[in-house]
Amino acid sequence: MKSLDSVLLTDLYQLTMLQGYYEQGMAETAVFEFFVRALPPERGFLLVAGLEQVLQYLENLRFSAEELEYLKDTGRFSDDFVDSLASLHFSGDVHAMAEGSVFFPNEPILRITAPMPQAQLVESRVINLLHYQTLVASKAVRCVLAAPGKLLVDFGLRRAHGGEAGLLAARASYLAGFDGSSTVLAEPAFGVPIYGTMAHSFVQAHDIETEAFDHFARAQPDNVVLLIDTYDTEAAARKVVELAPRLAEHGINIRAVRLDSGDLFDHARQVRAILDAGGLQQTRLFCSGNLDEHQLGAFVQNGIPMDGFGVGTLMDTSADAPYMDCAYKLQEYAYIPRRKRSEGKATWPGRKQVYRCYDEQGVMTGDIVTLDHDVQAGKALIQPVMQDGKRLQPPPSLEESREHARHEIETLPPDLKALGEFHYSVEISTALKQLARDVDMQQH
Amino acid sequence: MKSLDSVLLTDLYQLTMLQGYYEQGMAETAVFEFFVRALPPERGFLLVAGLEQVLQYLENLRFSAEELEYLKDTGRFSDDFVDSLASLHFSGDVHAMAEGSVFFPNEPILRITAPMPQAQLVESRVINLLHYQTLVASKAVRCVLAAPGKLLVDFGLRRAHGGEAGLLAARASYLAGFDGSSTVLAEPAFGVPIYGTMAHSFVQAHDIETEAFDHFARAQPDNVVLLIDTYDTEAAARKVVELAPRLAEHGINIRAVRLDSGDLFDHARQVRAILDAGGLQQTRLFCSGNLDEHQLGAFVQNGIPMDGFGVGTLMDTSADAPYMDCAYKLQEYAYIPRRKRSEGKATWPGRKQVYRCYDEQGVMTGDIVTLDHDVQAGKALIQPVMQDGKRLQPPPSLEESREHARHEIETLPPDLKALGEFHYSVEISTALKQLARDVDMQQH
Repeated sequence: MKSLDSVLLTDLYQLTMLQGYYEQGMAETAVFEFFVRALPPERGFLLVAGLEQVLQYLENLRFSAEELEYLKDTGRFSDDFVDSLASLHFSGDVHAMAEGSVFFPNEPILRITAPMPQAQLVESRVINLLHYQTLVASKAVRCVLAAPGKLLVDFGLRRAHGGEAGLLAARASYLAGFDGSSTVLAEPAFGVPIYGTMAHSFVQAHDIETEAFDHFARAQPDNVVLLIDTYDTEAAARKVVELAPRLAEHGINIRAVRLDSGDLFDHARQVRAILDAGGLQQTRLFCSGNLDEHQLGAFVQNGIPMDGFGVGTLMDTSADAPYMDCAYKLQEYAYIPRRKRSEGKATWPGRKQVYRCYDEQGVMTGDIVTLDHDVQAGKALIQPVMQDGKRLQPPPSLEESREHARHEIETLPPDLKALGEFHYSVEISTALKQLARDVDMQQH
Repeated sequence: MKSLDSVLLTDLYQLTMLQGYYEQGMAETAVFEFFVRALPPERGFLLVAGLEQVLQYLENLRFSAEELEYLKDTGRFSDDFVDSLASLHFSGDVHAMAEGSVFFPNEPILRITAPMPQAQLVESRVINLLHYQTLVASKAVRCVLAAPGKLLVDFGLRRAHGGEAGLLAARASYLAGFDGSSTVLAEPAFGVPIYGTMAHSFVQAHDIETEAFDHFARAQPDNVVLLIDTYDTEAAARKVVELAPRLAEHGINIRAVRLDSGDLFDHARQVRAILDAGGLQQTRLFCSGNLDEHQLGAFVQNGIPMDGFGVGTLMDTSADAPYMDCAYKLQEYAYIPRRKRSEGKATWPGRKQVYRCYDEQGVMTGDIVTLDHDVQAGKALIQPVMQDGKRLQPPPSLEESREHARHEIETLPPDLKALGEFHYSVEISTALKQLARDVDMQQH
């Protein structure tokens, strides 16, 4: 019951509302949509991620006997109501934008159509899963755009917010174009390629730094990446040059050295020179240490000889924008469109579709958000993925979603691709505005 | 294997280093300490949280047959080494500050003393667990100090970074003095009291707002908290006044109304007046909507009639400081103190203790960080909690840790308690500085 797979990983108000729906017999079809209200600071666009975890969650939605017993024991609910939950499972439809798709505020990326209790209950976890991966993918893609052609590895597990965040950040950043992650579990869980070197402790545990390098190289002969900043970066680079011929006698090449502190621009230039002068032109430079897309961009723009980057804390916590203003809102109940008018948080009613137009070069030119039945020019981005609780097709592989993301990024307008300020046009259709007015007239 | 309990929820470099230690027979005793390097912006002190989850992790540290097979299949490691992992478990000692303790930068809050491979392997998850809960507890305690006597409820699950963060934020904020959480699973998992009301969807699903209130009240007669901002806050407050006598006939009282949007100061004053004029002086006001300690403080200082707050996103993501600069560093290997000198990231070597002094009123006056054997005046904050892999005492209950936190907060100097700017004195002892110099002389 205490596993994160528990259906009790939800807000209490979902269950109190479910009791209300139960007592009123309100189990008509409800339509909820997930969308982001506004772009976080410094983001010009967002990247869909987390849909696969949402679908798995919906497929496995069940109350166990132990969970039902707990609910009865709390004394908060009627026995009849709790008994009714024993047969609850997700039997609804899901429409969504594919993972890796570029999207903008007010564009739904997920629509759930199901009997009210089911569609309501899942709100908390659906938001939790979609929000975080989308947040990380939307940050990671900025790193990918800032440092084209560089090796990018997620290093963020330790300071991610809990273990699930660490694991899902490996997935979301790979989806967005990273080369892999240092998180081991991400390989068996998602097939994300994993990367690993050494920590300072390995060097510190040896009395002599060169011995640490030698021992590590012999233990990992195919993956020799040496961390050289434990004491003095340039001195360590010279030790690497001295060690290289001895390792070469055993057929071992030093693939890379890693820098993790100090003025990385300056160290990179000096270390590159030391390695080149020592015949190690093939040894790559890799660095880490509170990096984000701004610093990656600075490396590239200043022509610093750095071949790869470990990006950790600032990406896995999306530190400059650690949350998005997103919501999962009721848009229709019993086939009647609904709308919330709360100040600053009003929603567009009804089941929606997003159409995207492109110019002759295949570059995105503008989106229109409209009602599902109001066909417009352009590509319809929201597609059915689950019907009556069953997937309509097998899930795409993570590689396929990553390829879709790569293609999406190619279609971005140049200013968005350059991470600059840019207003991309997202139009609300006439039909949708009219429906909002009609709904406002009806509500008491 | 794909569960968060997997030992593979670690960085690959832990395993590549373990192979290096294995091949060199380096299994001497290592001492690692976890500490925070600097206070995040706007934090005057920090609160220890997450120790209990670390101890559970250490107790359960094992490689399953499936995990060992996966490691062999990767081709990255020798079979001998992987076979050696089959018997790995945690057999070391743990010293720590109690959960709920106030602490400052450079003060270790956890020390692990164990054979090198064990102490190394656990680094990633130990940091992951301690960092996040400490981050949230240190944010939550600011809300507690800003709004004394108010009902404070964690609402953050949906925008926390993944499910584990949502669940652990409920625990960490309760430890810091919150009254409870909306996250249901936090009750069976940790005994955190849970709170829940209704969402806008419940109101929207009804054609008439008053009917939604009536239905909710009848379904949850002991817990009637009505959300009144779906359409027009003051109009809804008047509907609540009209409904109240009808509910009272059935013995149902309206405990509270909740506001979630707009100018909350203004709405609170107006709604309070409407309720009071309608005879509902006993009905409490509760609000939510991107709140943090600054807004809570403003409610209190402006005398706004608000009785309780749901604090969500900004706390669960620690949005103004979404990470801490923290580390788990090797301080001693084979009984020889060790130190890393990386620029800006140098560490203090050896096994350490923190002593805290108090004035006659019991207010904290200053800390000193020194070597474990260098006894100083004051209270020694780091105590043994696990020996040879076994706990020295049963874990304190969460209520006991919460009580400890409450006591700790009472001992804070007034300026820290007022969340003001304040420099609290943390001295590095002469003995520790001397050891650092000695270690620097030895290292090559």
